[in-house]
Amino acid sequence: MAEKSSVKLHGMWASPFALRANLALKIKGIEFEYIEEDLTNKSELLLQYNPVHKKVPVLVHNGLPIAESLVILEYIDETWTDPPHLLPKDPYERSKLRFWVAFFQPVFDLMRKALVTEGEAQQNTIRELLEKLDVAEEGMKEIFPNGVPSFLEDVKPGYLDIVFYSLFGTQEAAGEFFGVKFIKPERYPLLVSWIEALNQVPEVQEVTPPKAKMMGFFQFLRQKYLPPKA
Amino acid sequence: MAEKSSVKLHGMWASPFALRANLALKIKGIEFEYIEEDLTNKSELLLQYNPVHKKVPVLVHNGLPIAESLVILEYIDETWTDPPHLLPKDPYERSKLRFWVAFFQPVFDLMRKALVTEGEAQQNTIRELLEKLDVAEEGMKEIFPNGVPSFLEDVKPGYLDIVFYSLFGTQEAAGEFFGVKFIKPERYPLLVSWIEALNQVPEVQEVTPPKAKMMGFFQFLRQKYLPPKA
Repeated sequence: MAEKSSVKLHGMWASPFALRANLALKIKGIEFEYIEEDLTNKSELLLQYNPVHKKVPVLVHNGLPIAESLVILEYIDETWTDPPHLLPKDPYERSKLRFWVAFFQPVFDLMRKALVTEGEAQQNTIRELLEKLDVAEEGMKEIFPNGVPSFLEDVKPGYLDIVFYSLFGTQEAAGEFFGVKFIKPERYPLLVSWIEALNQVPEVQEVTPPKAKMMGFFQFLRQKYLPPKA
Repeated sequence: MAEKSSVKLHGMWASPFALRANLALKIKGIEFEYIEEDLTNKSELLLQYNPVHKKVPVLVHNGLPIAESLVILEYIDETWTDPPHLLPKDPYERSKLRFWVAFFQPVFDLMRKALVTEGEAQQNTIRELLEKLDVAEEGMKEIFPNGVPSFLEDVKPGYLDIVFYSLFGTQEAAGEFFGVKFIKPERYPLLVSWIEALNQVPEVQEVTPPKAKMMGFFQFLRQKYLPPKA
C-alpha cells in the first residue's frame, strides 16, 4: 500500500472525460479531493497543471499533474496496484479493451456532432452514428461471450466499461433531448443491457449527473455551437 | 523468455502507423514475418484480422490479431518483457510519454490536411501546424532535460520516439515536396535534433522509405484527395 498521499481531481460535472477519472478513483476506492472547475473562468491551478490543453480532467498526485483521461486511467491502474484492476493482466485481453476504447471515441464525436447540426447534416451524422453502434453491438459479443456481467455480483467496472459509460451513459438524457433514443434495445440489446447493468453500480450513480441537469447542458451546448440560420 | 512463437505483421510501406509496429519489433529484436498489403486490394487475412477498420497495421501473434498501432506498441512491450523497454517502469514517466503521444497525433492530421488543401485553407492549416509544433518544442524540453540522447550510445528509441518518428520522420521528403520545410532548425532546434538522432539508428534506417519514393506517394495522395478546382 502507498503511504498517505495527496490525490486531487480537477473536473467539471458535465465532462465525460472528467467522469472517467472520477469513476475510476471511486471504483479503486482511492480517497481524493474533487475540485469543480468553472470552464468559463478556469482556475490558475488548472492552467498551471495542464498548460498544453487547459482542460479537465487533471489528476494531481502528490503534486504531480497528469492530464488526458485515458492517460489518467492507465496511471491510476499502474499506481494503485491493489484490486480491483481496471485492466486485466493478460496482454492480449488488455489489447482488446484498448482497441474498443479507441473505437468508441470517434463514435462519441458523432453523437456530439449530431447535437450541434440540423436537417440533412444531422440526419447523416445520426445514420453514421447508428452504423458505428451496430459494429460495437457485434464487437461486444466477443468481449462479453456470456452476456454483460452483473457488476454488483461478479466484477467491478473496468477500463472499457468506464469509457463506454462516460460516452453513452447519458444517452437517456440525450434521447429525451433529441426526442429520439439512439441506443434502442431492439437494435442494440447488448449495449442497452450494458448501460443498464452499469446504472446499478453505486459508484456509477454517484458520478452521474441528474437527467434534467444534463438536458439543460445539452440545450446550452446546442445554443452555443449551432451555426445561426442562413 | 517466450517459446518459439509466430509473429507476423501486416503493413504497408508508406503507412506511418505500420512503421511504428515495424520499428518497435525491430528495436525489441523480435523475429517476425512482414506481409506487405496492397491497400487497393486488401488480403483476405487482413479483412479477417481487422474486420472493424480493415486497416494496417495488424500484428498477428500465435494466430491472435492485434490492431491499432498504439495498442500494438503497448502489446509488444507487455508481451516481450526483456529490455529494451518501450515504456519506462515508473507510472508518472509513462503518463508523460502517453500524454505527448496523444498530443502528436492531431498535429500529424494537420500535416496531412496541408497536403490536400490549397491557398488560404492550406496556409491556415500550416499556421496551426507550426503553432502546435511550438508547443511540442517547448514540451520536449521537459522530456529531454539534458537534450536529445544519442540513441546509438545511451538508449534505444522508445514509445514516444517511435510515434514521433513515424509522424515526422518523413518531414524532409514532405519539405521538398511542398517546397517549404515545416520543422526548421531555427524555430524547432530540439525537434530537429531529435529527428536527426533517430535518423542515425540502424533500425530506423531499415524501416524508412527512400525519400524519392515517399515524395511520389505524397504526389499520389495529393492528386487523389485534392478537391477539383471550381
